[in-house]
Amino acid sequence: MNHKELIASMAAKLNAPKSVVADLLDTTVTTCTELLVENKTIGFQSFGNFEIRKKEERLSVHPSTQVRTLIPPKLVVNFKQSNILKEKLKDLPHHD
Amino acid sequence: MNHKELIASMAAKLNAPKSVVADLLDTTVTTCTELLVENKTIGFQSFGNFEIRKKEERLSVHPSTQVRTLIPPKLVVNFKQSNILKEKLKDLPHHD
Repeated sequence: MNHKELIASMAAKLNAPKSVVADLLDTTVTTCTELLVENKTIGFQSFGNFEIRKKEERLSVHPSTQVRTLIPPKLVVNFKQSNILKEKLKDLPHHD
Repeated sequence: MNHKELIASMAAKLNAPKSVVADLLDTTVTTCTELLVENKTIGFQSFGNFEIRKKEERLSVHPSTQVRTLIPPKLVVNFKQSNILKEKLKDLPHHD
């Protein structure tokens, strides 16, 4: 489900205009992005936490040419699911 | 920043009542949880995508006792950051 479909689905649930939901979702995204750029952790109750993690420098070897490349360290967003979400996924059939 | 602080920060930005923002965030969480449980991917524009991934069965060896345990396969939520978010993190100083 993409951003637009999500807005429509939530607007229906909240019985609110799509424009209001779109504004609120955009503000959620900008607020979360600002916080992450400030290296802050964000907690969504019953869903999970976002935090910035540093991926260390690593050596990568091309599978066919065997050429070795040094990948510099970088910062990535890490999402840690809440226990509530973990429980909900436990009883699902495993999709192969 | 926890859930409550996020609501207050967004309510101030949107000049909207906290209760309205709280409803929206709760609906965002329940909608995303329902979609993930249906094994659907969710895309937040300029932020990233959530999807369900299957972690395969693996053998774990206790570092001190060397006891070997078979960890069953499980489903986990994977968050893939958008290129826009990736770019914003690129110019940040690396926190050690």
